[in-house]
Amino acid sequence: MNNRPIGIFDSGVGGLTVVKEIFKALPNEQIVYLGDTARVPYGTKSPESIKRFSIENAEFLMQFNVKLIVVACNTASSIALPVLRKRFKVPIVGVIKPGAKKAARLTNKARIGVIGTPATIKRRSYKKAIDGILGRAKVVSQACPLFVPLAEEGWLNNRITLDIAKKYLAPLTREKIDTLVLGCTHYPLLKNVISRVVGRGVRIVDSASSVAEEVAGILRKSNTLSAASKRPVHRFFATDAVEQFARIGQRFLGKRISRVRRATY
Amino acid sequence: MNNRPIGIFDSGVGGLTVVKEIFKALPNEQIVYLGDTARVPYGTKSPESIKRFSIENAEFLMQFNVKLIVVACNTASSIALPVLRKRFKVPIVGVIKPGAKKAARLTNKARIGVIGTPATIKRRSYKKAIDGILGRAKVVSQACPLFVPLAEEGWLNNRITLDIAKKYLAPLTREKIDTLVLGCTHYPLLKNVISRVVGRGVRIVDSASSVAEEVAGILRKSNTLSAASKRPVHRFFATDAVEQFARIGQRFLGKRISRVRRATY
Repeated sequence: MNNRPIGIFDSGVGGLTVVKEIFKALPNEQIVYLGDTARVPYGTKSPESIKRFSIENAEFLMQFNVKLIVVACNTASSIALPVLRKRFKVPIVGVIKPGAKKAARLTNKARIGVIGTPATIKRRSYKKAIDGILGRAKVVSQACPLFVPLAEEGWLNNRITLDIAKKYLAPLTREKIDTLVLGCTHYPLLKNVISRVVGRGVRIVDSASSVAEEVAGILRKSNTLSAASKRPVHRFFATDAVEQFARIGQRFLGKRISRVRRATY
Repeated sequence: MNNRPIGIFDSGVGGLTVVKEIFKALPNEQIVYLGDTARVPYGTKSPESIKRFSIENAEFLMQFNVKLIVVACNTASSIALPVLRKRFKVPIVGVIKPGAKKAARLTNKARIGVIGTPATIKRRSYKKAIDGILGRAKVVSQACPLFVPLAEEGWLNNRITLDIAKKYLAPLTREKIDTLVLGCTHYPLLKNVISRVVGRGVRIVDSASSVAEEVAGILRKSNTLSAASKRPVHRFFATDAVEQFARIGQRFLGKRISRVRRATY
């Protein structure tokens, strides 16, 4: 059991920010990553489609006998976890609950901002998860549809990105939030700009690192941490445009991806 | 033959700018529109996937016994026309050639700018089409990946959009273009801002109206213009998220879309 890989899927490259944190927290674990680049983005698709895509992605990962699946996509996490848990026997970790838990732990005044794709914000998934922990917190949500294309364009620090962040984040700073959840796996790339806009006093919850902590906790408790002594060989798959995935992906992973294979299902 | 509908497909809502122009040029023609919103956008996908998606879209339209198919998507037009023409007997009209022809007609100094999605620009489809007509024109191309999300966000006239347009279009104004092709069906929504940036002296070629002229020409020549006397009833289909298609789509079509049905294939 222990030396089986961890499976991770996302709609595209964004989930690689989660892989980066798992590499740091759990350097002995082998990763199989699937980016569904043929159907990216999920944030604008219907719940029925997102459930179907998620099941197909999980089935693909199960071929590698994974011991746990991370749904490293906020949209899929807010819609498809119940159907995945019903269908697959391994633990399924989404990105919403770990982020919500960390925000609840960090906030002092129970005033929390959440930013994400339109689909994630519309479903109020973070608000529900935070309310479930804190009772009555003030949760202010804001969809930021331009943040994903800005991150993919690589405009991480310029004045335009700063202006866009100011426009999106104004309602949150007006509400004097003390904690901000980055509810999309693309957003850690824009952390500098976001942090400048909301002010250094606001704690930023990067769901990627919260997810890595959650995964580490589950494997520890179930005694299924890898016992491998040599460096694991990771595998990266994309359902389309593998060269582009490798090129853009290294910005998210923080290191070169030597090989990306085409996944078909 | 004559009263059969015209079929139009696009990866999403953008092609509705073409429908708008066809409504103006050919008010008696019935339209069947298909937006492949389950797989939008095409601009970042591989040629193999785009060919497969295009064949599936055309097959869907053929069920309605269409007399002509408009590929109202620049990416699909630059990749899938040969495979579609081989497979289907009706005339297939793409958006590249009509836009290139119009630019070649309008330019005085043979200095033409082309803007589009990364996929369209990378394939140099407009440059090849313009060179084919004018011999040796100076064609300056620029990918503008943020223009589509800006148009969908509805930021059509604000300062941020102006700043982004300035950044993208600077290489074109430096080259003293006298004509600019909007090589993406989303871009007509940003025409005001684009025109302000390149200056009123630069002629803007909106591929949507060129395509409508091309379609009118083909139907006239083949004597297959509709002879219907009453107002045609149009049909709109999307492969996913039909409510969102109707909501965002009306900005592109310039009028309300009463009903959008889900297409399955």
